[in-house]
Amino acid sequence: MSGSLAIIGLGPGSTNQITPEAGRAVADAQFFYGYKPYVDRLALRSDQHAIASDNREELARAKEALEKAAAGHRVAVVSGGDPGVFAMAAAVCEAIESGPEEWRALDLTIVPGITAMLAVAARIGAPLGHDFCAVSLSDNLKPWEVIETRLHAAAAAGFVIALYNPISRARPWQLGRALERLRTVLPETTPVIFGRAAGRPDERMAICSLSDARPEMADMATCIIVGSSETRLVRRSGKPPLVYTPRSYTGPSR
Amino acid sequence: MSGSLAIIGLGPGSTNQITPEAGRAVADAQFFYGYKPYVDRLALRSDQHAIASDNREELARAKEALEKAAAGHRVAVVSGGDPGVFAMAAAVCEAIESGPEEWRALDLTIVPGITAMLAVAARIGAPLGHDFCAVSLSDNLKPWEVIETRLHAAAAAGFVIALYNPISRARPWQLGRALERLRTVLPETTPVIFGRAAGRPDERMAICSLSDARPEMADMATCIIVGSSETRLVRRSGKPPLVYTPRSYTGPSR
Repeated sequence: MSGSLAIIGLGPGSTNQITPEAGRAVADAQFFYGYKPYVDRLALRSDQHAIASDNREELARAKEALEKAAAGHRVAVVSGGDPGVFAMAAAVCEAIESGPEEWRALDLTIVPGITAMLAVAARIGAPLGHDFCAVSLSDNLKPWEVIETRLHAAAAAGFVIALYNPISRARPWQLGRALERLRTVLPETTPVIFGRAAGRPDERMAICSLSDARPEMADMATCIIVGSSETRLVRRSGKPPLVYTPRSYTGPSR
Repeated sequence: MSGSLAIIGLGPGSTNQITPEAGRAVADAQFFYGYKPYVDRLALRSDQHAIASDNREELARAKEALEKAAAGHRVAVVSGGDPGVFAMAAAVCEAIESGPEEWRALDLTIVPGITAMLAVAARIGAPLGHDFCAVSLSDNLKPWEVIETRLHAAAAAGFVIALYNPISRARPWQLGRALERLRTVLPETTPVIFGRAAGRPDERMAICSLSDARPEMADMATCIIVGSSETRLVRRSGKPPLVYTPRSYTGPSR
């Protein structure tokens, strides 16, 4: 009896943004492991079983799923967005590396999904239209100094920056500090997008300048996109403005 | 008669990775503008019309599509991957900004897709499992010095780097120079992934160390992922290794 493990990206939340590949992987699995809000999105059959857990339990969840698969079951680990972007794929790889040899022999599949920054960008124009980066503001597993250094380096080099995990009850001050640090490098008119729950009924998109950006504008479901000094606003009467980063670079050669 | 424009992401190439939202947007449009290989992927009805063009004609294509939409038609612009990542969404925004007022009034929708780096990462483990960036190596619209500076800054700050547009007949030397520059910052054992045509029948994935990476390993359809100094390989007997970037940072605080 040989088990399998699929790590599945469910996209930002709308069923319209789940790929057929992900849908099929869900249909094929028997046991589903994941953070509760993601597992709750699944419409499972009576022969399928959900094992939901809290966030910040990624490694324990990964190990449990691997054990179940190694026992011969068809197992899925589900992530919102893409499982490879600040999500479960890295936790499963880490568990495999430190786990028993048999876990390395498992049939492992990773199914990509639309990650939050792509869904938010699509709602607003093309803010990621040129070089960009994605940074997690969570300092649970890396020192805060490393995060600030990365933000500074990325902004100074002209990258648009997508901020994941911007704020939570346990991490209330980090976003404010990140914005402060970015203000030391970027013009105060730099467009900032707060994209919450893209594609879901409770979606909320807001655009402001870096000088007006405030931590209170974000929650756990928000992906923030901070423009570069090249990022532009196109006003439209009766519609929200478009925000885009041009394909051409017009600044100084550095 | 009011026209509409949808900018649609077709994903990396497999129909399994096209979202239902994108499928519906294709079904709804009458006229399709895009780079020929992407337009050729569409299975159009007899009442739907494809207008294919060469690459490096993005702005002209965007203007043509906007004109057609402004004339009252339901128009689609198609991109491979995600239209917001080094693709048509930024070109359309640019055309709208410099175009007639009526283009700003058009009903504009952008439909995200699975971008190449996510599809490549999913095939190989979780190389984008922590902070990462995406850089286009095309110096058609930005000076080469800016690209090198960005690569250096990103690698030095600990970002995993996804390289888009790595090489073409018109840009033969850039990838070699980029790899040379990265070798000045990163350990020579840093894993590099050459991911070609992810999810398509002609898919080809290769993993090597930064010291062994050569420009000949890439073509126009390749997305390259260069690890950070944290990125790890997990060997598996009888299977390709997994490459992943841990969620935890174990290096020095910078």
